[in-house]
Amino acid sequence: MHTFKELVAGFGERFGVRHFPETPASLYEPGEYFLSWGGKRIRPVMCLMGNELFAEISKDTWHVATAVELFHNFTLIHDDIMDQAPLRRGMETVHVKYGVNTALLTGDVMMIRAYEYLNLVTPQYLPRILELFNRTAREVCEGQQLDIDFEKMPDVSLDAYIHMISLKTSVLLAATLEMGAILGGASEGNCRHIYEFGKNLGIAFQVQDDYLDAFGDPEKFGKEVGGDIRQNKKTFLLIRAQELANAEQKKTLETLMQQNPADKVEKVLDIFRQCGVDAWAVQLKEKYLQTALKHLEDIAVVSSRKKPLEELASFLIQREY
Amino acid sequence: MHTFKELVAGFGERFGVRHFPETPASLYEPGEYFLSWGGKRIRPVMCLMGNELFAEISKDTWHVATAVELFHNFTLIHDDIMDQAPLRRGMETVHVKYGVNTALLTGDVMMIRAYEYLNLVTPQYLPRILELFNRTAREVCEGQQLDIDFEKMPDVSLDAYIHMISLKTSVLLAATLEMGAILGGASEGNCRHIYEFGKNLGIAFQVQDDYLDAFGDPEKFGKEVGGDIRQNKKTFLLIRAQELANAEQKKTLETLMQQNPADKVEKVLDIFRQCGVDAWAVQLKEKYLQTALKHLEDIAVVSSRKKPLEELASFLIQREY
Repeated sequence: MHTFKELVAGFGERFGVRHFPETPASLYEPGEYFLSWGGKRIRPVMCLMGNELFAEISKDTWHVATAVELFHNFTLIHDDIMDQAPLRRGMETVHVKYGVNTALLTGDVMMIRAYEYLNLVTPQYLPRILELFNRTAREVCEGQQLDIDFEKMPDVSLDAYIHMISLKTSVLLAATLEMGAILGGASEGNCRHIYEFGKNLGIAFQVQDDYLDAFGDPEKFGKEVGGDIRQNKKTFLLIRAQELANAEQKKTLETLMQQNPADKVEKVLDIFRQCGVDAWAVQLKEKYLQTALKHLEDIAVVSSRKKPLEELASFLIQREY
Repeated sequence: MHTFKELVAGFGERFGVRHFPETPASLYEPGEYFLSWGGKRIRPVMCLMGNELFAEISKDTWHVATAVELFHNFTLIHDDIMDQAPLRRGMETVHVKYGVNTALLTGDVMMIRAYEYLNLVTPQYLPRILELFNRTAREVCEGQQLDIDFEKMPDVSLDAYIHMISLKTSVLLAATLEMGAILGGASEGNCRHIYEFGKNLGIAFQVQDDYLDAFGDPEKFGKEVGGDIRQNKKTFLLIRAQELANAEQKKTLETLMQQNPADKVEKVLDIFRQCGVDAWAVQLKEKYLQTALKHLEDIAVVSSRKKPLEELASFLIQREY
């Protein structure tokens, strides 16, 4: 058994190699450039953990973990194009450094490379892994499109927003755990539980992320607070506030979002507090976290094996802000 | 055995269904819109023909043919973004009708859908099919990137250009034939020959395409002649002319390309004729066609089974202009 930290280090080492051929450099260097920035490698590590919950980590699992990380990076490259993001982790994004067309192709070829790693999986497991991977990949695209759609809509229901978040971020966390579990020989019931653990944990994480962007301690949060508010980004908090606000608060919110005054963040936070969405978000996050942990509990393996996944949950969901 | 025409009709019928879920419509309608335009469906039909050369067309082959056609359409959608093309077949391109971001995602999800069809292939064949498909998909991206690179370079060698064309268009024709052959139980030697048949036929087709754009009969060619010249597009003809031209002709070519005078097409064609690239192109096309046909001849099956592939070659490569 390995701790979460050990798995992060282990995957980082294995993944820190070249993933593309040398030529044509104009296509493959941008991909290597993007991958070289590192990252938390949460998703591939979850694949390893899903596997080690049931067995010793297999070769197949390393391949799938690599495929998942490449797929995730493909989505980041294409998302950066769509968001016209100039920077990621303080580095020039691929489309800024190499042009949109090359960034588009770099993403495409990174997804194909992911499928090349998947094809190293033992034939016995290949169809089942591919089925889950394909469905999830398609869902991630659905989530991204819904996100684009929602940003243009004046009102989005909380249910619709949770559905979008679930597709855009949670299903990949759920699927990477389940793929590890499948390769560990887990039963269907256990596979279902680990998938739901990942999915609910992902939603809890996103609620927390939205909360911290508004109410986090700037020093602990690591980035300026209020970015989402400044950009009128749809978040759990904004959507809930729009549901709960009275006519006057609604009007004020709209005006603030249209006029972008200097004290916008402060004023929007006031309304959030008046509507009680701060406490509500903490409860919502806790609800999804508890659902996740219940599914983890229900997985039929000795509880000592679940420790790394509990560590993961603690790492992702900090209780104190 | 089926004729080329029968296979085109048969595939058209099978492919003319919905390929995506109903929702979210904002993601999947653009894909259905693009696929609904129809097309010659050459690539999937080549998969069926490669299969029927060795066996009765199998279920697996229909799945792979569908995957190939979806992959091809994915490349068209992303290429249109890169080329900023407003129209294709007289219809608004996806990025014009639905926006660049949705077009990008529509392409992504179409590629994933291709892999979903591939995953319907019998497990026995799946790894081999995936390996060839993945390699080819990556090569197509390489070809597209090289094409982008070459357009910015003042001089490109003929060898480099042939390499690019081969990746951008021929390898997919070669691979779709070979995947059909693999599923028909063809030997390795026969697989190699059918791959080379497709690859060389593809290059011959591209030489012809470049030739017709410059020297074709406008009525038979179906589009205005000289489009490539007007756009300074690198073609077999231009690259060869740049190699053969004397100092004065070179200078004239450069000036014409920079200044775009009204009689540019006429003047460039004059230089092409002076350098003899018109006759050269006809010979080059013939050389690749003959190489292709030699590989077809060398496939170890009775010659009567090769008839549809000969029909295909005649369809793609018209001897008269």
